Amino acid sequence: MSPAHLPMGEGAEFDVIRQLLGTWGDVAVGIGDDAAVLDLPAGERLVVSTDASVEHVHFRREWMTPAEIGGRAATAALSDLAAMGATPRGLLLALGLPAGWRADLEQIARGLGVVCSAAECPIIGGNISAASELSLTITVLGSVQTPLTRSGAHVGDIMFVTGKLGGPGAALRAWLTGSDPQPEHRARFVGPVPRLREARWLALHGARAAIDISDGLAADAGHLASASGVTLSFDATAVPCIPGIRVEDAMMSGEEYELLVTAPADSAVEVASFAREFDVPLTAVGVVVPRGGNAVKGLVIGAPSGYDHLSDSSRSARVER
Amino acid sequence: MSPAHLPMGEGAEFDVIRQLLGTWGDVAVGIGDDAAVLDLPAGERLVVSTDASVEHVHFRREWMTPAEIGGRAATAALSDLAAMGATPRGLLLALGLPAGWRADLEQIARGLGVVCSAAECPIIGGNISAASELSLTITVLGSVQTPLTRSGAHVGDIMFVTGKLGGPGAALRAWLTGSDPQPEHRARFVGPVPRLREARWLALHGARAAIDISDGLAADAGHLASASGVTLSFDATAVPCIPGIRVEDAMMSGEEYELLVTAPADSAVEVASFAREFDVPLTAVGVVVPRGGNAVKGLVIGAPSGYDHLSDSSRSARVER
Repeated sequence: MSPAHLPMGEGAEFDVIRQLLGTWGDVAVGIGDDAAVLDLPAGERLVVSTDASVEHVHFRREWMTPAEIGGRAATAALSDLAAMGATPRGLLLALGLPAGWRADLEQIARGLGVVCSAAECPIIGGNISAASELSLTITVLGSVQTPLTRSGAHVGDIMFVTGKLGGPGAALRAWLTGSDPQPEHRARFVGPVPRLREARWLALHGARAAIDISDGLAADAGHLASASGVTLSFDATAVPCIPGIRVEDAMMSGEEYELLVTAPADSAVEVASFAREFDVPLTAVGVVVPRGGNAVKGLVIGAPSGYDHLSDSSRSARVER
Repeated sequence: MSPAHLPMGEGAEFDVIRQLLGTWGDVAVGIGDDAAVLDLPAGERLVVSTDASVEHVHFRREWMTPAEIGGRAATAALSDLAAMGATPRGLLLALGLPAGWRADLEQIARGLGVVCSAAECPIIGGNISAASELSLTITVLGSVQTPLTRSGAHVGDIMFVTGKLGGPGAALRAWLTGSDPQPEHRARFVGPVPRLREARWLALHGARAAIDISDGLAADAGHLASASGVTLSFDATAVPCIPGIRVEDAMMSGEEYELLVTAPADSAVEVASFAREFDVPLTAVGVVVPRGGNAVKGLVIGAPSGYDHLSDSSRSARVER
């Protein structure tokens, strides 16, 4: 892509774009043509995903600052690249912008830019439209030689989870019962981190299946089990929980943007060296068994359970689970 | 990308995805992982664009069938690839789906699938979210050796426009004044065609700058003039209009998804051979002159004018221009 932006003319839409570019600085590159042009490293495959963060569906205005809304939306999208073990190469933001949010746009953009900068992901394009509710639909492009997939788990693999679970779910429960979440729980809801470097390290050390935890560990384990044609046997006592969170709640907590990966038992994935490398815990949580197999101890997951994004009561379910 | 879809588990969200895949058949490929994986032809650059079609902003439910809504949204996105001279390689659909539109989803998907099929563009991924208004945010990926750009116009180039303009604008005026549009005008609004093959032919024959006509020829000519640092001198009598449409109205008519291109005066772009090849007219409409230059006859465009996507009254402006 070309590093400079194209000269743009007059009009409120271009004024907004110019404001965004001013906020983003060097993080945004080559904006202004009908489409962005991107060159990938030779020998790497293109990985692409699109993800939406919608007001009232994925968040409420009173829960988060505008900067947190922007940052969290970027993380949710980038996390899908992490799940593939890919390196980010570009992000496009399609913004549905109600008039009532116009004054918050700069802070939304700033939060998004901070996450992109940390992920070394250039902002390469986007779209702005009027809308009745705020939405950030974010497309991320990455590249990788050999992607991790949901379908790569094999019988005998060890399952690992990054980080500690339960914070976002606890924060949601607090808000939805009219109380303030504990700061540690709120921080995990409003400021998750895409595990991009962690995923590449895991892939380099032998991990072969991965999914990011967006629907909750139980549900996402089900997606991975379905795609791989296996059963995941969890040691429920091993699931890493934020202190004070019950394991059942931790396994239903969505929007964690931590990773569930599987690796052969003789792989080089080693929890102590991971923790030293990233200052984030990695925990072995069970083993992959044949479809229909029994639990070693604790939970057996062979098909999705937990949160459903589009149930009949989806709008409320999304925030009231 | 892998041709097969990953096995998916239970849940309303997956039921919707399965319905979409059933509707799309072979047009959709490799759905179900956290991200899609795509291989581009060696030596070609990646081109990517994202575009939103939002109810009440870009269309009203009573104007179009669900299939037309889906097809038109796909065309609007693919048209940005045409403007770069790129070949489509993949499309991702992020759907904001209110409960009141659920029964129309299959027809929306069918219309989108027909356009993708005609453009030979596989559907490779997407996202579904609850929403209060229907929105289709579509990201398209393409590839090309040397992209056309908005900034590529040079003094002395000849300007060409594909097709005949004014239909969408006339249809809008009819709807907004409470009458039924003429069938030919309505057809151009609800069923535009992305000029993908036409753009590649034009690039092959020497065109070097292009923009698709989404804001209206006058406004889009302004964008191209700004980006190229030139003035576009139109012969207003030459602008190709649908019969019965005044040239002023044709130049303000948006969402045409025709192309404005420039090519050197000695290029191989030749209107008769283009028309034979595509059964679509190509018309020379003026010349590129130095910034601030005078019109040969008719209009001079050096900066954007016409429709603005995000004026203070943007929601209504979008449909009331």
